[in-house]
Amino acid sequence: MVVRADKKAYLANHFRQFIDSEYVICDEETQRPYECDGLSMYCQQPMLVVLPDTVEQARKVVEICHEQKIPVVARGAGTGLCAGAMPNAEGVVLSLAKFTRILDIDPLARTARVQPGVRNISISVEAGKVGLYYAPDPSSQIACTIGGNVAENSGGVHCLKYGLTVHNIMAVEMITADGSLITLGSEGLDTSGFDLLALIHGSEGLLGVITEITVKLLPVPEKAQVTMAAFDDVESAANAVGAVISAGIIPAGLEMMDRHAIVAAEDYCHAGYPKDAKALLLCELDGVEEEVNDYCERVGEIFRQHQAAEVRVSQTEAERALLWKGRKSAFPAVGRISPDYYCMDGTIPRGQLAYVLGRMEAMSQHYDLRVANVFHAGDGNLHPLILFDANVPGEFEKTEEFGGRILELCVEVGGCITGEHGVGVEKLRQMPIQFNEHEISMFLSIKQCFDPREILNPGKGIPILKNCQEYRSIDNHSKP
Amino acid sequence: MVVRADKKAYLANHFRQFIDSEYVICDEETQRPYECDGLSMYCQQPMLVVLPDTVEQARKVVEICHEQKIPVVARGAGTGLCAGAMPNAEGVVLSLAKFTRILDIDPLARTARVQPGVRNISISVEAGKVGLYYAPDPSSQIACTIGGNVAENSGGVHCLKYGLTVHNIMAVEMITADGSLITLGSEGLDTSGFDLLALIHGSEGLLGVITEITVKLLPVPEKAQVTMAAFDDVESAANAVGAVISAGIIPAGLEMMDRHAIVAAEDYCHAGYPKDAKALLLCELDGVEEEVNDYCERVGEIFRQHQAAEVRVSQTEAERALLWKGRKSAFPAVGRISPDYYCMDGTIPRGQLAYVLGRMEAMSQHYDLRVANVFHAGDGNLHPLILFDANVPGEFEKTEEFGGRILELCVEVGGCITGEHGVGVEKLRQMPIQFNEHEISMFLSIKQCFDPREILNPGKGIPILKNCQEYRSIDNHSKP
Repeated sequence: MVVRADKKAYLANHFRQFIDSEYVICDEETQRPYECDGLSMYCQQPMLVVLPDTVEQARKVVEICHEQKIPVVARGAGTGLCAGAMPNAEGVVLSLAKFTRILDIDPLARTARVQPGVRNISISVEAGKVGLYYAPDPSSQIACTIGGNVAENSGGVHCLKYGLTVHNIMAVEMITADGSLITLGSEGLDTSGFDLLALIHGSEGLLGVITEITVKLLPVPEKAQVTMAAFDDVESAANAVGAVISAGIIPAGLEMMDRHAIVAAEDYCHAGYPKDAKALLLCELDGVEEEVNDYCERVGEIFRQHQAAEVRVSQTEAERALLWKGRKSAFPAVGRISPDYYCMDGTIPRGQLAYVLGRMEAMSQHYDLRVANVFHAGDGNLHPLILFDANVPGEFEKTEEFGGRILELCVEVGGCITGEHGVGVEKLRQMPIQFNEHEISMFLSIKQCFDPREILNPGKGIPILKNCQEYRSIDNHSKP
Repeated sequence: MVVRADKKAYLANHFRQFIDSEYVICDEETQRPYECDGLSMYCQQPMLVVLPDTVEQARKVVEICHEQKIPVVARGAGTGLCAGAMPNAEGVVLSLAKFTRILDIDPLARTARVQPGVRNISISVEAGKVGLYYAPDPSSQIACTIGGNVAENSGGVHCLKYGLTVHNIMAVEMITADGSLITLGSEGLDTSGFDLLALIHGSEGLLGVITEITVKLLPVPEKAQVTMAAFDDVESAANAVGAVISAGIIPAGLEMMDRHAIVAAEDYCHAGYPKDAKALLLCELDGVEEEVNDYCERVGEIFRQHQAAEVRVSQTEAERALLWKGRKSAFPAVGRISPDYYCMDGTIPRGQLAYVLGRMEAMSQHYDLRVANVFHAGDGNLHPLILFDANVPGEFEKTEEFGGRILELCVEVGGCITGEHGVGVEKLRQMPIQFNEHEISMFLSIKQCFDPREILNPGKGIPILKNCQEYRSIDNHSKP
């Protein structure tokens, strides 16, 4: 402990030579907000928290940590849901909270150059002044930052049509583990050499610290309209999703909610959802007016063919916003009907939707835990919310096991253990279920070539091989 | 030489234990077709050529070569334009010509599972039976194979709207350097861990041998229409390209040809291009009928505002096909007006189009070599064809130098040295202009972690660091 105190004082002093003293945070009380991200069950006090406000300062922090072999955990808004930004007890939290400038918006190139701490929504607000917007829109878009979006390769309601974060980024400037500053990607469409830009997406802070991002912007569509459809059973809704896609329609978003989610959302914000429905679909279409009208009609027909009990189309912008409000506030709404909930994030082939929802219902009965489903149905990206009470002894452990089973089911049907939330600490156990040792050793060797001293967010994202067997043993538990 | 003959006989014998004798090619005459790819100035006889017809056979070839530390150069149709498939004198060419099966088309998931030797166009032909198609369409699509498309991250006329190959692939099965078989990606939308799937795209055979590919399919659009516009100067055409994009329109394709290309294409296939024009734009719009009509009108207006001397819209499918025929046969057409031509492939930010075309014209005068431009203007992906005569002593060297200057100009304005053709052998010299030593050493260390014995397509894609200084010295030559 003496050694740690010495190291802490030494580092703090060192950092204060180039960072304002108040932004080198040593005391436990002021460090409190940095102890966890959105997955607050995983919590850890760091050694130090620093908030540089220039790239050069951030670069020097990394350089010094590299020399001293001190872990560095980069942090945006801390809205992540996999404990990817959880501090390291022996390390430094490098907060990018002060990197909030939009540096440039270029309407001709349709790009924006921004700092990593810029909130997702702010880009669209600013670009909106010239008729453009940034497409990927995670539910947390009013709070989450673009740096974190790149680190987790975030999705959102609109990624069915417009792609994930990785499809919407032109270039990234980042600090490498040894404190060098490099740029990946270019303003050109493609780039030469290996696609390191794509590799950085979803790398969860293990390969570098992002300091600047050039995003693609899109023109705001002429019209957008939401069709809501209520179903008496989950299977019909799931089949309707497949039918829309098979019909050659690419909605801007195609979301599904089940009965627990519907009731919670309706009670919370009165979006006009039918509370007796077993499943609800929200299908947004955008584009030029004629296209939207045409597709809306066809989507309505498909829903009716699949026994929708009710089909309603938004007639005004206010109505559209209200229909989405229910969906977007479904997480906090569910928070009102249960002391705690645990949000999962698996992805499955669309065709498996009905099967997986059925299996999940069976598991819910097995574990005696309710599940509310609110998710990106068009993408096959599930977000089951397991409802539990952390004050009941053993209930969180049961919840975690149930969550793990859901992820394993996703892998079983050909999907994967995370759609947009990342692996972090949370899904380390499931990685060996999805990947064999050869694949995991490839991840490790890539980590090695970017960060040989293992200072960048160590212990996250990739399970350490020697633990694989331990993780695997979980596999042998009985499954519902 | 004795050692080499021994090794060759030993290997050939070894391979013949599990591959039909006639598909292990040892003699110079039968090897001839494998000596180069589409960039035939770079030519090399290999030690052996093998054509396995199962994944297991291909895997064993790699495994044996790995044991013996023999270079392996995977080869599709050999239509590449950067000598990426040029054989290694001491190595084995692993042809995937017999991997031509479409394994599965799934209309609900909108995917096709195919072998790497399937021709690009064949996927769309087969998927067309259920109303789907595969979007990326390199000019060589009737000949090039999907495996090569992944290896080079190919583009095409439609990638402005539908993305590059990397945006259209779900999963890849590949043989690693040591002969293991792994799968990258999944049927789900995103995947966990580092994005190795993206990393494989454009990796030019340096990281693995692709044995199976799952591609995304799209619904065939209801309508497609081409607007042709002729301009009296290149600058107006370049500005019109920017204006279309700025207006919030995303064409399916937006192509440009300059006077040499127009005349050559018109003489060759009588598409109805005005031969006195200095620049021609072809703008394809696709989607539902109303959308296409609306956008077509707006595109026409924009072209007229930019002083188009003529604007013509295709009225029938035959007319649309004819307008494209001119563009698609521009390369062979140019081949008729010059003994030889050299096709470059740089990418620039769209806003730099007029400036770069002007600079290129000045260089053309400096080098006294004509340049025909036929390219993906909407993407900023240039394809200058430098016209020369290989029989005039020194003219190829001059052409190569001119080509190098064009690529450097692309980097200078914020673009990159290859849009879709790859680095191969051809652009090794330009890599250190685009990337610093730190970045190149990152490429090398990624290569190292996939292929520590350096058997996969060695000598391509990444310049060896010790040569960087030599390459750099080129930089000090006087520039026009």
